[in-house]
Amino acid sequence: MTATRDATSLFGPVQDDLPLVDELLRSLARVESPWLQRMLESVLGGGGKRLRPAIALLAGRLGDYDRELLVPLAASAELLHTATLVHDDVIDAAPERRGRPTAAALFNNASSVMLGDYMFAHAAEFVARTGNIRVIRNFAETLRVMANGELTQDMSAYEYSPDVQRYLDRIYGKTGSLFATAAENGAIVTGADERYVLAMRRYGEQLGLAFQIVDDVLDFSATSEQLGKPAGSDLLAGTLTLPALLYMERSPDDNPVRRAFEGVRRRANLRRAIDEIRASDVLAEAMLTARRFADGARAALDPLPAREPRATLEGLVGYVLERRS
Amino acid sequence: MTATRDATSLFGPVQDDLPLVDELLRSLARVESPWLQRMLESVLGGGGKRLRPAIALLAGRLGDYDRELLVPLAASAELLHTATLVHDDVIDAAPERRGRPTAAALFNNASSVMLGDYMFAHAAEFVARTGNIRVIRNFAETLRVMANGELTQDMSAYEYSPDVQRYLDRIYGKTGSLFATAAENGAIVTGADERYVLAMRRYGEQLGLAFQIVDDVLDFSATSEQLGKPAGSDLLAGTLTLPALLYMERSPDDNPVRRAFEGVRRRANLRRAIDEIRASDVLAEAMLTARRFADGARAALDPLPAREPRATLEGLVGYVLERRS
Repeated sequence: MTATRDATSLFGPVQDDLPLVDELLRSLARVESPWLQRMLESVLGGGGKRLRPAIALLAGRLGDYDRELLVPLAASAELLHTATLVHDDVIDAAPERRGRPTAAALFNNASSVMLGDYMFAHAAEFVARTGNIRVIRNFAETLRVMANGELTQDMSAYEYSPDVQRYLDRIYGKTGSLFATAAENGAIVTGADERYVLAMRRYGEQLGLAFQIVDDVLDFSATSEQLGKPAGSDLLAGTLTLPALLYMERSPDDNPVRRAFEGVRRRANLRRAIDEIRASDVLAEAMLTARRFADGARAALDPLPAREPRATLEGLVGYVLERRS
Repeated sequence: MTATRDATSLFGPVQDDLPLVDELLRSLARVESPWLQRMLESVLGGGGKRLRPAIALLAGRLGDYDRELLVPLAASAELLHTATLVHDDVIDAAPERRGRPTAAALFNNASSVMLGDYMFAHAAEFVARTGNIRVIRNFAETLRVMANGELTQDMSAYEYSPDVQRYLDRIYGKTGSLFATAAENGAIVTGADERYVLAMRRYGEQLGLAFQIVDDVLDFSATSEQLGKPAGSDLLAGTLTLPALLYMERSPDDNPVRRAFEGVRRRANLRRAIDEIRASDVLAEAMLTARRFADGARAALDPLPAREPRATLEGLVGYVLERRS
């Protein structure tokens, strides 16, 4: 695994099919009305890395690779992910994501709620195109787990709970479940061996958890310019992620997060906690946990034959750990 | 068709199965966390008439009636409907619906968005339980048409457009599509003859349009107490429904709605328009249009044999026209 990888080596054998996914997503934006087109283009054109679609396509290499089934399936994973971001931004009233204005800021809350629903609907239509009931059931269950994860995060904002397992459950709902389903469904829809189906689900789940922990570390460690939002924005919104939980563990009886969550000089105490987290080694400690899940993702690939897509799936694990934004 | 009908005669042969739908919906509220339970109970316990589930069950009488398939299907129609209301209320920031506080008022916007998503997900899971790809595709398409209808309504708020066809397109998206799909899917899932499948889709569509026009008339004619919101609330929110469109037609060059939408003394002009609509015969004229769609719904039943569920489906048409809230 090299430290820098260009896009070609990153996605290996499915690199050439990812533009088909982009094309299908762009085709959505060309229908219905001009303002809907503008809204869809603004949220789908954000230059995401298309990691979830790539994983679905790679998993499809384990069975009878069929673009007719895999491209809509891969597109549905990206749409579901993006729809969740659109609804997230309504919730947080976030003005920017990755330095670009959010749908909620560009349009209004009302339109953003409906835009997200419209994208969920198209994701469901894409999944239905596969004609595979097991794939459809996985998709519906993932939608439920994701919504439940978001609800849990929202209801527990500013609740002082130093519980790492609860955090892991939450990030499984938020990220792990969709990675797992994208990977599993790519294998199912191409009729891959059942051992590979299970391996891909496990790979996706572990990779998704590693991905989200890295995201939560970057929320502290990256600069505001890299993030397109202030460093420590999760904590400022009352959400406890792994770095904050590890920081709290070091002085459980009294720490600035506890004081802030108890309502004592909230802003000042949170800023102090963010500065201390950035300066301490809790970020490195959190990365050790991310690496454990990354190792779990690699280990999940053991049943796979030693040819593609295995090498590329292994390479993605390294990419997830090394990414800087 | 008698003017008063009790619940037993209203739903005829499926009356005894509707409690199974309620039971399945209530079972949702018993899972996951206590606050999710409270949220679900508050939105699902609103005492709706379960018209959409009843139509799905009745359509199921045209094939091999199977509760295992029909009860989740019927529940999915009610869930999809209720989820849309939850998202609607976020949008309108509505404090009450039918005299009860909305989810958006009880909880917060953020939780209400996610609660709606959670309900969409469960609706999708219920539909997936049927294992019928055609049913699942209809469901996904309906979700898309509904979201597009809501987006259209939102984007055209306070836009002065005296276009009845546009209104009909919008209420098809908002209401007709789900009635049509509930009716069609009930027939499909029980393997009914294809002529009956088409008849039920047409019946549901026409009944849904009649239902929505009656709703839009009641928004003007009913008292605030009956509605649980101020009379004329659609127009006050900038939404043109059939009564307002017919009122505008009578003096197209200058009328209080036009003046209000052009920004001239908006509130006062809208209140004047509402008073004039309530006092004029445009509400009776709008009801004539509702009756035309109701006739269309009855005519759609022509291919059905002259035994149940036909009599009950015909009876529902009368109920939709006669309801007062």
